[in-house]
Amino acid sequence: MDQIMKSYPEKLSRSHIKFLKKLFPDNESCFDDGTLLASGVDASRRHAKPLALVRPKTTQQVSELLRWAQQQRVPVYPRARATNKVGGCVPVHRGVVVSMLGMDEILDVDSRDFVAVVQPGVITADLQKVVEKQGLFYPPDPASLKISTLGGNISTCAGGMRAVKYGVTRDYVLGLEVVLPGGEVIHTGGRTHKNVVGLDLTRLMVGSAGTLGLVTQATLKLLPLPETSASVLIGFENLSGCLQGAEAVFGCGILPAAMELMDHNTLKALEIHSDVPWPEGTGGVLLLKIDGSAQSVAADLGQIEKALSAVHTTFMEQGTGDDQERLWELRRVISPAAFNLAPDKQGEDVAVPRGSVAKAIESYHEIGRELGVTVLCFGHLGDGNIHVSVMYDKLVAGQSERALKAKKEIFKSTLFFGGTLSGEHGIGLSKADYIGMQLADAEINIMNGIKRVFDPLNIMNPGKVV
Amino acid sequence: MDQIMKSYPEKLSRSHIKFLKKLFPDNESCFDDGTLLASGVDASRRHAKPLALVRPKTTQQVSELLRWAQQQRVPVYPRARATNKVGGCVPVHRGVVVSMLGMDEILDVDSRDFVAVVQPGVITADLQKVVEKQGLFYPPDPASLKISTLGGNISTCAGGMRAVKYGVTRDYVLGLEVVLPGGEVIHTGGRTHKNVVGLDLTRLMVGSAGTLGLVTQATLKLLPLPETSASVLIGFENLSGCLQGAEAVFGCGILPAAMELMDHNTLKALEIHSDVPWPEGTGGVLLLKIDGSAQSVAADLGQIEKALSAVHTTFMEQGTGDDQERLWELRRVISPAAFNLAPDKQGEDVAVPRGSVAKAIESYHEIGRELGVTVLCFGHLGDGNIHVSVMYDKLVAGQSERALKAKKEIFKSTLFFGGTLSGEHGIGLSKADYIGMQLADAEINIMNGIKRVFDPLNIMNPGKVV
Repeated sequence: MDQIMKSYPEKLSRSHIKFLKKLFPDNESCFDDGTLLASGVDASRRHAKPLALVRPKTTQQVSELLRWAQQQRVPVYPRARATNKVGGCVPVHRGVVVSMLGMDEILDVDSRDFVAVVQPGVITADLQKVVEKQGLFYPPDPASLKISTLGGNISTCAGGMRAVKYGVTRDYVLGLEVVLPGGEVIHTGGRTHKNVVGLDLTRLMVGSAGTLGLVTQATLKLLPLPETSASVLIGFENLSGCLQGAEAVFGCGILPAAMELMDHNTLKALEIHSDVPWPEGTGGVLLLKIDGSAQSVAADLGQIEKALSAVHTTFMEQGTGDDQERLWELRRVISPAAFNLAPDKQGEDVAVPRGSVAKAIESYHEIGRELGVTVLCFGHLGDGNIHVSVMYDKLVAGQSERALKAKKEIFKSTLFFGGTLSGEHGIGLSKADYIGMQLADAEINIMNGIKRVFDPLNIMNPGKVV
Repeated sequence: MDQIMKSYPEKLSRSHIKFLKKLFPDNESCFDDGTLLASGVDASRRHAKPLALVRPKTTQQVSELLRWAQQQRVPVYPRARATNKVGGCVPVHRGVVVSMLGMDEILDVDSRDFVAVVQPGVITADLQKVVEKQGLFYPPDPASLKISTLGGNISTCAGGMRAVKYGVTRDYVLGLEVVLPGGEVIHTGGRTHKNVVGLDLTRLMVGSAGTLGLVTQATLKLLPLPETSASVLIGFENLSGCLQGAEAVFGCGILPAAMELMDHNTLKALEIHSDVPWPEGTGGVLLLKIDGSAQSVAADLGQIEKALSAVHTTFMEQGTGDDQERLWELRRVISPAAFNLAPDKQGEDVAVPRGSVAKAIESYHEIGRELGVTVLCFGHLGDGNIHVSVMYDKLVAGQSERALKAKKEIFKSTLFFGGTLSGEHGIGLSKADYIGMQLADAEINIMNGIKRVFDPLNIMNPGKVV
């Protein structure tokens, strides 16, 4: 690989630029410093400056670009809204950043097939609004859904709060149009909800972070839109109370659409930031959403209340219809509220088996105490995917180093509990040094072998670990 | 590949047999003709005689076997209960059949993690019974579930009737232990419900039909067990009535656990075979199951009845609790009942986009009429996966040829409607000649490339198309 890496161009030649300007006329290609700098950063706050930015409008353009890029060994960095938190969009080996935002059409929404066909630049929330008007439902709901695109969601296998009932992006991708390095266009999967012909290239592409090929179109599975939903916010004295509460709900056979947890440090941050509904003595909160027909939601609410009567709670509040939003607003402001505890944040999105969530969170707190940084845990209890924010002050001597040390300790503890370094965000640049903690060489070798099948010259998002 | 194929041994040498007998003592290895013949057939009724049958009890044995097989270029054919309908288990290049039935332990069922860890030889229905006792639920329900194993289900990505709400086997496999050709043991995925570290090797293995490696352990996702269920059998005048009925149900935001269709020829076969509840003039039947809490199921039943009042039905009958079984018995006896129409059957399991089911089925009937064979369609309307049985009499001159011709025409029509050659059964031997109708060379090349990464000498289930 090293030999190939050396051959990436340091700068574009005149003929390179001529080619790109012809293929991407007018503002479809950019070479000015300001645009290039802006196109080389993502939500990880890491950055690198590419050699060019192009904005394709057609699959044909992408195909010609990838044929050229393969011939010239120019790195290609696909990009949409760059909400990626681990550096997935950063062009570390320069090359060409390919903004997919120009391919942003919803090509088809079919209420009989329960299928939508989209270009990768469509914003997730926009698709959701459009399909909901037809009584249809696209469940994946990453926190970034109002900004991020379906192409980005596919490339990261984005999750979200509804994953506990509805699964993640992987579960809604039926078929893909993918341009391979060299320019060949392949079609994986299809428009049917079931399909077992050939190896599952569709799910192999999902979550591959643009390292195998460039997705130019996706066929997505839709569900019937649940008639209504309701939410319940429940306070407990401590974390293990939350877990007991969660088990009581699952125990009556109800699969909530979302089951979110907030630990005591999260509550503390919210108490400074907002008016909060829970009483003193609340050391952990669960926020549930259930959905279905109006009658079944009412029935499930009754069941949940009954099940929770056997567990010690500090308070409980229900919301239905638009009135739920005030409960979910508390969940949404956690990220900004966290900065009330310290000015700097290092965020992880580990996942552990659901039954180990309480013990894992306790261990993260212990790591924070030992290292003198505040650890705040919240997130998707329903599927064990916990957002762990290490809050610190980089102006205080040694705190940056201690936050970094906490990261490794958090990973160690997560793996001890049978968990994974990432439930949603991926590895990218931020966790590349740690992947060996989770994957064995034999597994990495297989992944590298698959990468070479798709991308023998390593031009697709090079420098990244999926 | 041809060069490698030639080197498969015609027979086992003395030292081969010595090795196998030492690694698999006593009845763990067999070389007698009767056993070998029996171990070379599957539910496709195709057969071939292997050189040996072995029955491993440990991953270590499988690892040593695959190291040896790689060195000696001996084909390895994994097998469990061989309910595969497309020849997936048939040892077409001889070699060693590996029965996984000796590895049949449920290693763990964890009601807090919502996870089961199983060996591949566990029968699917047995796992379901065990987890249900703990209030847990493993949804995949292929028709063979009382016979077939989880290893087999994983290797084929088995579906079933509940796929419309709960998805297929793929959606419940969190992690795998896999022995690779050469003997290396890898672990894919893990015990967490979310995991985006590395390429998705887990889903790549699911449905790969033993062509990439041999699964020796699986970690499966469980759900909370729904409190109860109810079923509704609804008659319509014709196929398009069935589709309207289905749309009315989906339209009120209800996702049934199962939504099965029976066409007029299926009804005819059942009428000869059983007492049937529908009146004359019924030309299509829907059979639905809904599940959830007792109250929500009651609520949903009311909603469904209301929704269907807007559609012309010929009759409707509900069943709850054990009383549902008599309705499902009708669905279960379709396969034997079909032989009332003709003595021979050629079965396909195509899938089309849900909205095209009626038109596709009409086209299959038309193909039957033109070729003088009876076509009977039933199956999973909810996900567009239709079982198409061509009933014929091979003793009548020309009928076998016409059935075979019907197969190709059915595939053509399916693809015309945006469908797939297989929703559940896979390609195997039976459809190997047709895969080029659906997949382009570029896609097949990528799949072959991935195969070579895992299995460079093509010893895993050689001769099969996934």
